Parts: sequence; structure tokens; C-alpha cells
Amino acid sequence: MTRRIDPYQHQANPLLVVISGPSGVGKDMTISRLKEMGYPFHFVVTATTRPKRPTEVDGIDYFFVSMSDFAELIENEELLEHAIVYGDYKGIPKAQVREALASGRDVIMRIDVQGAATIRRLVPEAVLIYISAESEEALIRRLKNRKTEPEGQLKMRIATARQELKWLEIFDYVVINAEDQLDETCHKIAAIILAEKCRVQQREINL
Amino acid sequence: MTRRIDPYQHQANPLLVVISGPSGVGKDMTISRLKEMGYPFHFVVTATTRPKRPTEVDGIDYFFVSMSDFAELIENEELLEHAIVYGDYKGIPKAQVREALASGRDVIMRIDVQGAATIRRLVPEAVLIYISAESEEALIRRLKNRKTEPEGQLKMRIATARQELKWLEIFDYVVINAEDQLDETCHKIAAIILAEKCRVQQREINL
Repeated sequence: MTRRIDPYQHQANPLLVVISGPSGVGKDMTISRLKEMGYPFHFVVTATTRPKRPTEVDGIDYFFVSMSDFAELIENEELLEHAIVYGDYKGIPKAQVREALASGRDVIMRIDVQGAATIRRLVPEAVLIYISAESEEALIRRLKNRKTEPEGQLKMRIATARQELKWLEIFDYVVINAEDQLDETCHKIAAIILAEKCRVQQREINL
Repeated sequence: MTRRIDPYQHQANPLLVVISGPSGVGKDMTISRLKEMGYPFHFVVTATTRPKRPTEVDGIDYFFVSMSDFAELIENEELLEHAIVYGDYKGIPKAQVREALASGRDVIMRIDVQGAATIRRLVPEAVLIYISAESEEALIRRLKNRKTEPEGQLKMRIATARQELKWLEIFDYVVINAEDQLDETCHKIAAIILAEKCRVQQREINL
């Protein structure tokens, strides 16, 4: 659904922005940098069953929950979207998104490409941004540097990244997160959000 | 026409950007400020038969031409679009736009609302931006301050501005040029252009 804006009563609708892209492209880094830069967005905290990495903080980077708690969230339909990503469950708490939008804030969430496709189906007016590396070689290099996964998973992530490129057309925008250009990436995401707020046909989000 | 972008061969198409809006809203000021800010756009120089204002420079602000020369431009189909605006002819030289686009540069042109509607029909993939005042009172105040027109024309411009608002839905974006917020206006226009360059479905301009 969209509504035409009245320029003399200019009130842009809050947006639901999805940051997605292949594993290793820098989704988490991008979100962290956007936070640091002080943009007034609501950053969704995803619930996950995957183990906490040493640098992560519960309730800030993710809500780290047990398999049993996650099952309950699904059961009670408290998740906007959930998926198994490399054996771990991840899900978007519905109430958190709804409350942030109701308060008039733009909501940003980071999801894998499969999850973004689900959001596109459930919330057609979401703004979908695909973060891409500048080349496949660059993506592989970054995955190797990450060193958080065993060798077998690396091959799996590369194969998956190739498949995910075929989903590009469900996205509205693609932003190249080139090596050492994180601020440029964040600047482009902010520009996309600002431009969307100027659209004559405003996106209306209904959850 | 659109084409899907390839993120690993990321080459954004040059854009045709139309800056429009009611008389007095600050289209010329906006264009001047964008130039000062050093954005690498090609700013179209419009041909017009209207008398030069004291601060204007021929070939920079407009090409000031005689009625007879203008008639020749029409005759030879050398104008992308032309219209009579308050008794004066204005037109967009076609070759200038084509050459700038061919060199890969984004092209920005300032046209009245009637002209923007023509561009939408002739070049559906143009990016149309409507510049609006924050309120009708603000617009009238600015028209009065301009003091370049006699009283009768002022009434005409106000009536026209009201009619033009009905054309808003042919535009892609609306930017409020609020009093003393010219830099903010230019910042939003730049954001719109940057966002458009990140679109997965790239606009293809055929003149």
C-alpha cells in the first residue's frame, strides 16, 4: 500500500529497511558503523540460537536464546520472520518492530538473503537493500580473513553467495561495500533512506 | 526501460533529473546552490525568450534568444521540450542533454510543472523532483519578496501554483524547500540522485 504525500502536511511514513547480502560481505559491520554514526534509526535486535562470538553482547548484537526459548517464540507467533542459517535459528521479534514503527522511527534490520525474500512477501513495502562485495574474489578473501568457521563451511558460504545473487531482483537497491569504504557504504544507505522519505508515493508498512 | 544492475560490474546509468515546482519556490536558487556545492552534474542551460534579469548571465543562467531564433529551434526539432511560461518561451536544447548523458554524466534541468509533465510523457524514466514550499503562505510571501513582477502576475502565479499541486502524482519525489534551508534542500536532491544510482532496476534514458 502507498499513500500520496501532501507537501504542505509533509509527514513521511516510517520505513522498514532490510540490510541483506551474502555471508562475509559486512552486514554486521555496516550496522555497527551506522549506529556509531548516530543515525536515529531503530536497529532491530535479532533473536538467535547461535553461540555468542567473543566480541558480541547479548541484547545489543543479538538476543542469544536457547533452542527451547526460540521454539516458544515460533509457537506464539512472536517472530516476523525466522530461518535456519547454517544450522542456527535466527528470527525478528515482531513486537519490537511494530513498536518502533508506531513511535515514528525508521526500523533497520539485518537478515540473510533467504529471510529478505520472506520479508518481501510478508511486507511488500519494505525497503530491501542488498550489500554486495565489489567482486567475488573480494568476498572470498573476506570470508577467509574472518576465520570464525571451519574450512567446510567456507566452501558452503561461497556456493551460497553465488546462489543468492540470483535473488538480487527482489531487492530495491544494491550497495557495494568495497574494501575500506565502510563509511561510503553507510552514507549510501542513509541517502537511500532520505530519498525514500521524499517519495511522493509513500510506502505504508502493515505488520 | 530499465535494466538489472550487475553488482560485480556495477555501472550506474546516467540520470535525467527534472527539478520543478511552482513559481517562486526557489528552483533557480536550488540549481545555483547545487552548482556552488560542486556536484558533478551537467546543469542544462535552458533557452528562453524572456528578458534577462540584471543578475543573470547569458549562456550560464539561460541562453537568451530572440523570438525568431526560438522559432527556428522549434522548426528544426532541436528542443526536447518547450512551453510558453507567462508569455515567454522556454525550451530544453536536445543535443546538449544527449551529449551530457553520452559522456556518462547525470543531467539536471529546471522546468515548470507543465514542462515536467511533458518530460514524463516523452522520457518516462526521467527522475522528477517537485520542489515545494512548506506552506502556501510561505510561497506567497516569497513571490511578494521577489518584486520582479507586477501585481496582476502575482495573483496569476498563486492561482497557477494551486493548480500545479494537482500534478504532484506524476513526480517521483517531493522536496520541501523551507525558508533558509537551501543547503538541506540540495542535500536531499543529492541523496535522491545517489539512491537512484543504487537502484537494482536502473532507469535507461532514451531521447
